[in-house]
Amino acid sequence: MTGLEEVIERARRIVRPTRLEERRLKRIVEAALSAAREEISGVAGALDVSLEGSAAKDTWIRGRAEADIFIHFDPKVSREELEKLIVEIGSKLIRRLGGEPMIMYANHPYVEGVVDGVTVDVVACYRVEPPNWISATDRTPYHTRYVLSRLKPGQEEEVRLLKGFMRACGVYGAEIRVEGFSGYLTELLTIYYGDFINAIREMAGWKPPITIDLEGYYESRERILEAFPESPLIVVDPVDRSRNVAAAVSLTRLSELILAAKLFLKKPSMRFFKQFDRVPGTRELRALLKDRSILYMYFRLVDRKPRDALWGELKRSEQGVRRCLENLGFTVYRSGSWTDEKKECVLIFELDKIELPRYHLHKGPPVYLKNADEFVEKWCEAIAGPWIEGERLYVLRRREEISAHKLLRERIISGQVSISRGLITPIQRARISINVEDLLRLASRNDDLRKFILDFLVARPPFLER
Amino acid sequence: MTGLEEVIERARRIVRPTRLEERRLKRIVEAALSAAREEISGVAGALDVSLEGSAAKDTWIRGRAEADIFIHFDPKVSREELEKLIVEIGSKLIRRLGGEPMIMYANHPYVEGVVDGVTVDVVACYRVEPPNWISATDRTPYHTRYVLSRLKPGQEEEVRLLKGFMRACGVYGAEIRVEGFSGYLTELLTIYYGDFINAIREMAGWKPPITIDLEGYYESRERILEAFPESPLIVVDPVDRSRNVAAAVSLTRLSELILAAKLFLKKPSMRFFKQFDRVPGTRELRALLKDRSILYMYFRLVDRKPRDALWGELKRSEQGVRRCLENLGFTVYRSGSWTDEKKECVLIFELDKIELPRYHLHKGPPVYLKNADEFVEKWCEAIAGPWIEGERLYVLRRREEISAHKLLRERIISGQVSISRGLITPIQRARISINVEDLLRLASRNDDLRKFILDFLVARPPFLER
Repeated sequence: MTGLEEVIERARRIVRPTRLEERRLKRIVEAALSAAREEISGVAGALDVSLEGSAAKDTWIRGRAEADIFIHFDPKVSREELEKLIVEIGSKLIRRLGGEPMIMYANHPYVEGVVDGVTVDVVACYRVEPPNWISATDRTPYHTRYVLSRLKPGQEEEVRLLKGFMRACGVYGAEIRVEGFSGYLTELLTIYYGDFINAIREMAGWKPPITIDLEGYYESRERILEAFPESPLIVVDPVDRSRNVAAAVSLTRLSELILAAKLFLKKPSMRFFKQFDRVPGTRELRALLKDRSILYMYFRLVDRKPRDALWGELKRSEQGVRRCLENLGFTVYRSGSWTDEKKECVLIFELDKIELPRYHLHKGPPVYLKNADEFVEKWCEAIAGPWIEGERLYVLRRREEISAHKLLRERIISGQVSISRGLITPIQRARISINVEDLLRLASRNDDLRKFILDFLVARPPFLER
Repeated sequence: MTGLEEVIERARRIVRPTRLEERRLKRIVEAALSAAREEISGVAGALDVSLEGSAAKDTWIRGRAEADIFIHFDPKVSREELEKLIVEIGSKLIRRLGGEPMIMYANHPYVEGVVDGVTVDVVACYRVEPPNWISATDRTPYHTRYVLSRLKPGQEEEVRLLKGFMRACGVYGAEIRVEGFSGYLTELLTIYYGDFINAIREMAGWKPPITIDLEGYYESRERILEAFPESPLIVVDPVDRSRNVAAAVSLTRLSELILAAKLFLKKPSMRFFKQFDRVPGTRELRALLKDRSILYMYFRLVDRKPRDALWGELKRSEQGVRRCLENLGFTVYRSGSWTDEKKECVLIFELDKIELPRYHLHKGPPVYLKNADEFVEKWCEAIAGPWIEGERLYVLRRREEISAHKLLRERIISGQVSISRGLITPIQRARISINVEDLLRLASRNDDLRKFILDFLVARPPFLER
């Protein structure tokens, strides 16, 4: 057995659910389905219940048991009515199973609860025929059916290996926080490439944009690229030719997967399947922060928002602040967002410097232009200049404010920074600082924030951890 | 009388030589010419003597009396022989007049001495017919003849006004130190434009490249530009159509003249005719240096060199150091050179900062390239990264050395800076520093250096002095 085969064998044992987990999930799923059937009986427009997701396809990995219970509605039910009904039915259902219902939001609301250690999601969809989709979840039953019809016996394990690999490499999850690979996408890739090792070999050779069209809906790669012009990875949905299953995958996550696949083949190791969730101490972070130019913003949310919406707002605001810092004259090496998904948020930026030069060059017009003498008059009190070099006038201007955090605060308060509408108020009140000790104090009471800061400072994807 | 006319009237009085000066110059010129005639009698190949330059044309300005005594040689005399003879004849001549001969070098050697407060230059030329020039000075007698034949009575005074204006504005002098306007060029411009005020009005409207062809040698402006493609100002020499009289004029000096002319017309003032040679104290310089990022190099010359050659070497080396500093990651706002023309030299640079950031971004290849895993291996010990953004790898690299002067010294010592051959040894031994107090100490014993530092820090051409 080669090193590669040996590693894959060991990985199989890690990703495979235990008997105990399997029995528990089976029990919860059966209870949930029969309870759901009872709940919808007599509800006008609620037609059926089904199990979807990884539990239905037996592609879930150890420690990740999830039951997605779908309630199928008649298309005549209004969107509003459906949202009301799913919250009612879902909440009752979770309570009956002994869980505490939480209302969550994706494209429309759904209800989540933890039952005996297993996450149960109660989700609404419309019973429609393709391609007459009404809501985003309507495709899910078709996805399940497609995967079940195409997955050969034993291939579930190959899906699990791929999911386990992607999870450990930090690219698994289609949510905005991750911008990575969904479970369904992983299943399609396994169907397409046959098994885990073949998928990895193919991915190691990927050069974006990559196109995969399992059902051959498009006549050529060119047609696919025309249909999805911006995507680095396009996997045409077998149940909907107009949809890219990999639409959520960012170029960065895709590139991380490519590199991880290359490095895994070069030197197979269990590190590509194991997650390291070490929480650093304050002292370790302080050492890493030495001599680095870190600016951070800390703020508290005014109102609770859906997780994905919050992450979207954070990331857009992070980009807006980043552009502002660059316009001010800083180089932003990296940036990151963190939130506890409830009330606290941190945006963090690594800069080349925390202060701008006190003086900067200001370029004037060529001397032969009409406004040359206006420039001279305007700047006659400059610290240096106006002088002439080549055909142009220049002066040296003094900056009154040079600190990154103070300059940024001014711009934010005067509304010159592109920040998501929903975060404007909290960010205008944010603590904006370059004080490392304050940051460490903030993080001292929050393991997850310390872990985030560690990851930010070390800046290596998990598969490159030393 | 308008403000403009009044200022010009007052300026006339400033630039016009005094009776005393005129009498003294006349006496010295007569003595020099008759002595020169005696010296060459019996010297084979020495044919004649003549007075050239501003004294011959009566276009010199107050305080600037100079006698250029030319010795005309037969073209059969070898260059070597001519150089030997002019040193001998010139030295004897200066001594006879009571001066101390100094051997100077331009295109070939000449002898200079100060006689009764007047500079006397004894220069060799070949007696040739245009365009059979052998040496650079052969044209001079023709220049004198041309100007005398074209200058109308009274126009000498217009030349003087223009020279006085250019001198006070810092653009007069064709030597490499200045890169400005020669006396002959000023005379041609006066002939071309008629009088001072008309010349100023025309110059205020100049937009480079400017072409002037007094004798109409070229059929069009386009032909002139083709013949002198790089020059911002082209004045075709009336005695040699292949020569640009303004070849020495840099774009910067030309632009300064244009701006000075504009500002003078807008607000006529005697400041455009007066030189301010204020020598600052150490305290004033210290105040100006506050918060500014100044790097300087101080060195002593190993051997004495001709003035123009030294200035050329200094300026080329200044440019080389400037490029090196920019390659290192500094922004150079301005730079300057100073020398006492004997032994001491200073190169000075104003930078945006005196230290580079401790960490800098290092861009790697896209992940899909073959060398991506080599990059990962090479940089696995980086302080941060390798990480992926978009399709590329990055790491943060630590710089061991960040100070501008130390980084520059390393590069100079390892021979990576483009420095004039003649200055390599002194510059490799130079004091390279960012220490302001050391600079002030150095300047405390040298008025001229303090004045240079003042001008550098204030960075305004003389006509913009407050």
